[in-house]
Amino acid sequence: MPKVIDHDQRRADIIDVTWALIVKGGLEAATMREIATEAGFANGALKHYFPGKDEIIQGTYERALGMMSQGVAESVDGKTGLEALRAIVYATAPLEPGAVTAGRVLLTFWERAVSNEDLHQAYLAHLDDWRAGLATYLAQGRAAGDIVTDTPDEQLVDEIVLMNVGATIMSLIAPDRSTAELQRRHLDAFFERITPR
Amino acid sequence: MPKVIDHDQRRADIIDVTWALIVKGGLEAATMREIATEAGFANGALKHYFPGKDEIIQGTYERALGMMSQGVAESVDGKTGLEALRAIVYATAPLEPGAVTAGRVLLTFWERAVSNEDLHQAYLAHLDDWRAGLATYLAQGRAAGDIVTDTPDEQLVDEIVLMNVGATIMSLIAPDRSTAELQRRHLDAFFERITPR
Repeated sequence: MPKVIDHDQRRADIIDVTWALIVKGGLEAATMREIATEAGFANGALKHYFPGKDEIIQGTYERALGMMSQGVAESVDGKTGLEALRAIVYATAPLEPGAVTAGRVLLTFWERAVSNEDLHQAYLAHLDDWRAGLATYLAQGRAAGDIVTDTPDEQLVDEIVLMNVGATIMSLIAPDRSTAELQRRHLDAFFERITPR
Repeated sequence: MPKVIDHDQRRADIIDVTWALIVKGGLEAATMREIATEAGFANGALKHYFPGKDEIIQGTYERALGMMSQGVAESVDGKTGLEALRAIVYATAPLEPGAVTAGRVLLTFWERAVSNEDLHQAYLAHLDDWRAGLATYLAQGRAAGDIVTDTPDEQLVDEIVLMNVGATIMSLIAPDRSTAELQRRHLDAFFERITPR
C-alpha cells in the first residue's frame, strides 16, 4: 500500500517542519503558509493531510508527548512503587536538552489549548493519565512501606505536577536561574521528605 | 497638554483591547488587524502608538505585571522577613480570578518571550527582581530566627518560583485538578518546613 505509506510519511514530514518552526520561533512562526513552504507543498496542499492548523499543532504536541512517554516507559519498565515513582519523576523533568526542546512545543500547546476546547481536552486526557500513574505508584510505595508521609497522595501528585510544569517553563526562559542542578535538588528533597529516614 | 494625555489614553485603550483579546482567544486572536478593529482604529493607525506587535504585547504584559506588583506592594507594605515572604508568596499565587486572568496574559508572554530577545530580557529583569525580593526576605527571616532550615536560600527561592509558575499554568488549564485549595496546602507545607516547630 505505497499510497498509505506516503500519506503517513507526509504527515510526519509536516509535523517535523512544524516542530522545527515552533522551536525556532514559537506559535507565530508556525503559520500555515510557512509550514507549507518548509514542507515543500503548494499553499492549500496541507489540507490533504490535516484539516487545519489545530490538528497540525495537536499532531506536533502528540509527538512531544510521545517522546516523553517513550522515555517514561523505558525508565519505569519493570518497576513499581517508589522505584517507579522516582523513575517517572526524573524522566519527565526537563533535565536534558531533548526534554527542554519538547517543553518548547508543550508551552506553545498550552498557550493554544487554554483557548481551544479540542486541544484542551487532549491535554486533560494526558494530564489525567499522568496523575493516575503517579497516584498508582504512590499507593504501591505506601503499601510497601517505602513511602511514609502524612501528606495525602492527592497533594503529592499535584506538587509533582506543579514542579514539573514550572520547571518546563523556566528551563526554557531562565535555565541559568532555574538550573538543572537546582531541579535535581528539588526532586531529591521531595523524595527525602516522603521516604523513611 | 491635551494631545499628550490623549496619546497615553489611546495606548491604554489599545492595551485594554489586546488584554481582552488574549484572555478570550490567546496570542493568535490578538492580531494587529483585530486589535485595530476592536480599538476603533483604521488598519495601520496602531503604528502611531506602538512601533509593532511586540511592543503592544509587552505593554499588555507590563500591565499584568503592574497589577501583580501592586498587589504585592500592598500585601508586603511595612513587613519584613518571614512575614513579608508569606505575604508575597500568597499574593503572587494564582488563587483569585484576577490573578488567574493575569496569568493568561503571562502565558502568552512566555510563549512569545522564548523566541523574542527583547521580551525575553524584559521578563528576566522582572524575574530577577522577584527572586532578589524573595532572597532578601529569606535572609531577614533567618537573621531573625523565624526561618530555620538546612535548605539553602537559592534552592528555596527557586522552589517558590517553580511552584508559582506551575500553578499559573495549571490554574488556567486544569483548575479543577490543581485547585486553589491544593495550592494553599502546598504553600502552607512549604512554610511549615522552613519555620521552627
